[in-house]
Amino acid sequence: MPVPGPGEILVRARFLDVAPYMRARISPTSNYARGVRPGQLMIGGAVGEVVRSEAIGLEPGDLVVADIDFGWQEYALLRRGDIRLVDTDLAPPECWLDVMGLNGATAWLTLFTTGRLQPGDDVVVSAAAGSVGQIAGQLARLAGARPIAVTSTPEKLLHCLAMGYADGIAWRDEPDLATAVRRLCPSGVDVFLDNTAGPIHDAVLQNLAASARIVLNGTAALAATFGEPDIGPRFLRHILVARARLEGFLVLDHGLCWSMAWDRLGRLLRQGVLRTRYDIVDGFERLPEALIGLLRGESVGKRLVRVG
Amino acid sequence: MPVPGPGEILVRARFLDVAPYMRARISPTSNYARGVRPGQLMIGGAVGEVVRSEAIGLEPGDLVVADIDFGWQEYALLRRGDIRLVDTDLAPPECWLDVMGLNGATAWLTLFTTGRLQPGDDVVVSAAAGSVGQIAGQLARLAGARPIAVTSTPEKLLHCLAMGYADGIAWRDEPDLATAVRRLCPSGVDVFLDNTAGPIHDAVLQNLAASARIVLNGTAALAATFGEPDIGPRFLRHILVARARLEGFLVLDHGLCWSMAWDRLGRLLRQGVLRTRYDIVDGFERLPEALIGLLRGESVGKRLVRVG
Repeated sequence: MPVPGPGEILVRARFLDVAPYMRARISPTSNYARGVRPGQLMIGGAVGEVVRSEAIGLEPGDLVVADIDFGWQEYALLRRGDIRLVDTDLAPPECWLDVMGLNGATAWLTLFTTGRLQPGDDVVVSAAAGSVGQIAGQLARLAGARPIAVTSTPEKLLHCLAMGYADGIAWRDEPDLATAVRRLCPSGVDVFLDNTAGPIHDAVLQNLAASARIVLNGTAALAATFGEPDIGPRFLRHILVARARLEGFLVLDHGLCWSMAWDRLGRLLRQGVLRTRYDIVDGFERLPEALIGLLRGESVGKRLVRVG
Repeated sequence: MPVPGPGEILVRARFLDVAPYMRARISPTSNYARGVRPGQLMIGGAVGEVVRSEAIGLEPGDLVVADIDFGWQEYALLRRGDIRLVDTDLAPPECWLDVMGLNGATAWLTLFTTGRLQPGDDVVVSAAAGSVGQIAGQLARLAGARPIAVTSTPEKLLHCLAMGYADGIAWRDEPDLATAVRRLCPSGVDVFLDNTAGPIHDAVLQNLAASARIVLNGTAALAATFGEPDIGPRFLRHILVARARLEGFLVLDHGLCWSMAWDRLGRLLRQGVLRTRYDIVDGFERLPEALIGLLRGESVGKRLVRVG
């Protein structure tokens, strides 16, 4: 057990995060951040309890969240700058890895900053039943837009509709995705939060409204072939004709905006208008299978691993 | 010969424009504007002389420019709202279809508005020896950026270097375009004015700097297969990792900004720091061959057809 030095705290994990971004971090392919090599500590966020403290203002029993740099371990030595205090009066501990964490900030900033969502927009969200997707659907509905879910199965689509999506597509049962998108968005797609790339991306790109905004937030559909060339139809002419904008989004670039997003998300939580479905996997040793299952699309809602 | 009614002028063409955007306008494929069908008047801009006037403030002998709606004809009936007055003290008549026309506005707005060009940026321009490209290279250099030309032949590349490009690629002689881009921009491409799509686009997308801005301004490389699916490598992962932005640009959307761009371009013309190479084709009957040759990449500089 490590002993905290001056300014440090020892934190025991309660919930560890699993998230699609981890796929790219363990690939040798070049990425926006240095990867995790075999033998190194796996990155990941956690909510945990301070068990020893040598940091002023932090006491044993305090709940804290580290958004990325806790790591896959049961205890971590952290500093004040690594963590945020968890306020359980506002939301339960797991919510600080979800709505009050990077998933919430991602949904908020992709919709309202990069995506420039406006009332009346038709907004398509891929991986809509996932952690970011279930928040984005609710936020888009609250903002007067019409959110359309794309998810793999009818069961997940039912979840999306329960979370505020106006309509949606279960793509595994859909022989012609481009036609399905056109049926649901006959005037074209105004905003596309793309968490997948792949065939869903292709279908939406054939149905862009003028001035469409495509926020590329993840490439989950490429996970199985990560690092290999992606060959298929290209849609540059569609982008030009629609005068669309396609932009890569990485929430780590937008740290100065997180507190703004969490402030607004906290207000909505207090108003009781935001919900989360959690998919809790119990047991530290199940972290790898929890991540692999997530990448396979097994989970519905926000998946977390509960420890101890 | 048509007779002008109240508010109308009869204008005799002196220079008629040929431009890559015309390719899409004569295709039955859906586009940003209605196409020209067989038997209809072909669209296109012109500079011409007022020969009869029923409009207050416009007199026979005045030179005017119609940016798009003159049409391929020797005489046109126009109204005040269709035209701008040509000031030959500032620039010769042909310049009003070039720097002081939509080409100049396109170069200005793609670089400084959509492309957010900053001093120190490496900016790659495809079709760099063409009408927009030769202006963009000069403007990028004036703005403290490093413009890199991509053009088809060594002859055209020499022209680009004479127009202010810092370096460049003659792509027909280049077996590995992606490596050539990497050699010229080892830190990655910050801004890409893409007038072509196709293999040049593919090469640049593999060499994006963080926060790269790709302005898709034309798809000349797709002209021969216009309307057919474009199959090839896709670069969504590159766009995400670079947090790049790819945006379709259509100058007709930005009419409120044209006068701002022309005002600045006019100042630069007065300072004598902007040049144009013209490629003048003589004879109204040669309009079709002039356009076809332009799309084949025959011309260097701004091609216009001189009439009468």
